[in-house]
Amino acid sequence: MLYDNLTINEKGHLCMAGMDTAELARQYGTPLYLMDEERITGRMRTYKSAMSGYFGAGSLPFYASKALCCRRILELAKAEGIGVDVVSAGELYAAESVDFPMDRICFHGSCKTKAEIDYAVRLGVGFFICDNAEELRRIDAAAAKCGVRQSVLLRVTPAIDPHTFAAVATGLIDSKFGLPIPTGQAREFTRLALSLKSVVLRGFHCHIGSQIFDKQPLCDAATVMAGFAADMRDELGYSAEIIDLGGGFGVPYVESEPEIDIDDTIRLVAEHYKAEMSRRGFGETAVFMEPGRSIVGDSGLTLYEIQDVKTIPGLKNYVAIDGGMTDDPRYALYQSRYTMLLANRAGERADTLYTVGGRCCESGDMLGEDISLPEARVGDLLCVLTTGAYNYSMASHYNCVPRPPIVMLRDGKSYTAVRRESFREMLACQFDDT
Amino acid sequence: MLYDNLTINEKGHLCMAGMDTAELARQYGTPLYLMDEERITGRMRTYKSAMSGYFGAGSLPFYASKALCCRRILELAKAEGIGVDVVSAGELYAAESVDFPMDRICFHGSCKTKAEIDYAVRLGVGFFICDNAEELRRIDAAAAKCGVRQSVLLRVTPAIDPHTFAAVATGLIDSKFGLPIPTGQAREFTRLALSLKSVVLRGFHCHIGSQIFDKQPLCDAATVMAGFAADMRDELGYSAEIIDLGGGFGVPYVESEPEIDIDDTIRLVAEHYKAEMSRRGFGETAVFMEPGRSIVGDSGLTLYEIQDVKTIPGLKNYVAIDGGMTDDPRYALYQSRYTMLLANRAGERADTLYTVGGRCCESGDMLGEDISLPEARVGDLLCVLTTGAYNYSMASHYNCVPRPPIVMLRDGKSYTAVRRESFREMLACQFDDT
Repeated sequence: MLYDNLTINEKGHLCMAGMDTAELARQYGTPLYLMDEERITGRMRTYKSAMSGYFGAGSLPFYASKALCCRRILELAKAEGIGVDVVSAGELYAAESVDFPMDRICFHGSCKTKAEIDYAVRLGVGFFICDNAEELRRIDAAAAKCGVRQSVLLRVTPAIDPHTFAAVATGLIDSKFGLPIPTGQAREFTRLALSLKSVVLRGFHCHIGSQIFDKQPLCDAATVMAGFAADMRDELGYSAEIIDLGGGFGVPYVESEPEIDIDDTIRLVAEHYKAEMSRRGFGETAVFMEPGRSIVGDSGLTLYEIQDVKTIPGLKNYVAIDGGMTDDPRYALYQSRYTMLLANRAGERADTLYTVGGRCCESGDMLGEDISLPEARVGDLLCVLTTGAYNYSMASHYNCVPRPPIVMLRDGKSYTAVRRESFREMLACQFDDT
Repeated sequence: MLYDNLTINEKGHLCMAGMDTAELARQYGTPLYLMDEERITGRMRTYKSAMSGYFGAGSLPFYASKALCCRRILELAKAEGIGVDVVSAGELYAAESVDFPMDRICFHGSCKTKAEIDYAVRLGVGFFICDNAEELRRIDAAAAKCGVRQSVLLRVTPAIDPHTFAAVATGLIDSKFGLPIPTGQAREFTRLALSLKSVVLRGFHCHIGSQIFDKQPLCDAATVMAGFAADMRDELGYSAEIIDLGGGFGVPYVESEPEIDIDDTIRLVAEHYKAEMSRRGFGETAVFMEPGRSIVGDSGLTLYEIQDVKTIPGLKNYVAIDGGMTDDPRYALYQSRYTMLLANRAGERADTLYTVGGRCCESGDMLGEDISLPEARVGDLLCVLTTGAYNYSMASHYNCVPRPPIVMLRDGKSYTAVRRESFREMLACQFDDT
């Protein structure tokens, strides 16, 4: 099994956190997202203790809520004492709705509107991760209007190749995010921040990409950020209090991808970072990191019911499932690979290749090709692992398909964290507002 | 201008249907979908008169509501007397909510669940476009339970290459849709349909792909379908009453794509079809066609406000807009090309190249690269043309970004067909149901 919270019971059914997933599918219907609460909180604790242990006081992980903006997950983050990243007023609204402490929220994104900035300043959000000069002036103006001084970190691009997929590599110089260090734009950005009256420059932020399995790019980023912080001290007399190294820890979707030892990786990156800072005569700073996928990704799975099995002789076998790109667009967008199995026949030998076709009236609606399964039958439950991140959060209503529910598992019990959407809710904006 | 309903007024603002789009953006906010009602109804009338005129009595266009499942558009289709295609219970619910005549609805899709089939049979939907044998048995059982006989067309794959993009080509033999003619599976499918007591086989359906600009593939499909209908008559003694030739008429997104003369294309396809049927000694049949994109695609545009302009020296210019893949995932999914301009400076020379970055915290969130615009400024209104189809209908809540409203233009007035979504509505399933 790909993860240690997965087992097979005496009926041959897949279990997560000890609970029979086929039983849960019967109880809640399909498609169905299941999540293992204990695994999520465990991951939060691992990050929190590693960050404060190795980087020192004030250092904190921030859950990147774009991975799964679920109020229940935000409640868990609040209870565990970690921070939260938001990338829009909508995500901030979700955090506000669970009374998340505003001083532990970072507001990210390359394109915050004036209305969003005003809203976040008014709520007293802890930090803006400021993307560009235009935005910085907007934050300054909003803070001045509110009579406050707003803490900001500046997003800079360190030009590190994270050895990852183009669509998720964001730290190269050609990026829509932040301002590059090598071109001198990051320095001018810093100079601007120091000149404005209603923002308080607290430090710098970078994010080099997603699905990183190797500590080296993270260490490289730490080197560049330490160098940049030292340059800004030497050139502008400004000493950063906080360095944010971003997120990007990889999660294994298939057997061939390694599992990262989070504690050990943070220890090694912290040693490297501290040595680099110390070499430049820099005192202690707080460090932020921003795990999203690696907190929730491998704590979730999705169950679908197979509606049809179709064979095109000599060519291909298809299974048709009752979900697809509407609840998981990652294959359609990135050709992402997944591990799949039959939840109701999890112990059987997977010796037949299938293309998994989604329910949408669209040829590109697939979840995978050349997927090994036992010979599939109508009514079987197809389980896709590692769907805790970037599934529900990216779900659409294409073909007017409502979003599935998210059911959490804890202590041998299940509860609904997100209800199954009704047709009326899906179409709410097309009916009168009353 | 790409379309004849677009003009530039004395302020240099882009107008659609004679209305100033910059004014509308100020009034309704951005992002904003605008649609030209008269152009939509005009297209419906063109299809309706061409279908009945050239194919004869009983022939009808069915609006493929997956292109934009909007209750207002369904009301227009109802008033114009055309049919509607639905691909899910959700789309059927939307049609039901405007009292759309059930006898003018076709229920499509490669993966209808038992619950959806029961719902549609109970409502008395006109036709199922049946995808496979498993589904056919389910329809038969549902109809038997309701004590009715359900009309069906069988979806067969004619193995025509529509000379189009792989992700939208659905008529080749290797397809998740329907059953192939060349393998003999379509014949067995027909035999099964004729053997079942509670379904009435009315004919056959095919759909060879999307964005077809050439009549030849449609004529090829007509040839294959005529041949198949004749074979089924000769082999099984079954004479089809209806042949459904699917949709797929292309819409020009950029200047280099041709505009199709819908009336003339239908005339030529009808002549070809009738000759092919007649050559095989087949009497008159009704013909269905299923335009979606070509009814609404070029009647819609989207307006965004530019939030930032960023230059990476020697590399690239970015404009950051307040929407993107959440309201239009077509570039992220298919690298689809669009025509863009500045709505508030529509008469100015477009001499600078930009990458248009969406607001999501995701590198892949782009709407286009190497887009020519006048030198862009913060606050300019970016207009993307041809967003009437597969934009709102594919929108997601990624990054917790609510869906924009759809505002219709008619007789020099504007009205809201779909409201702007609130944060609370977007997160409704995460709050208590009460």
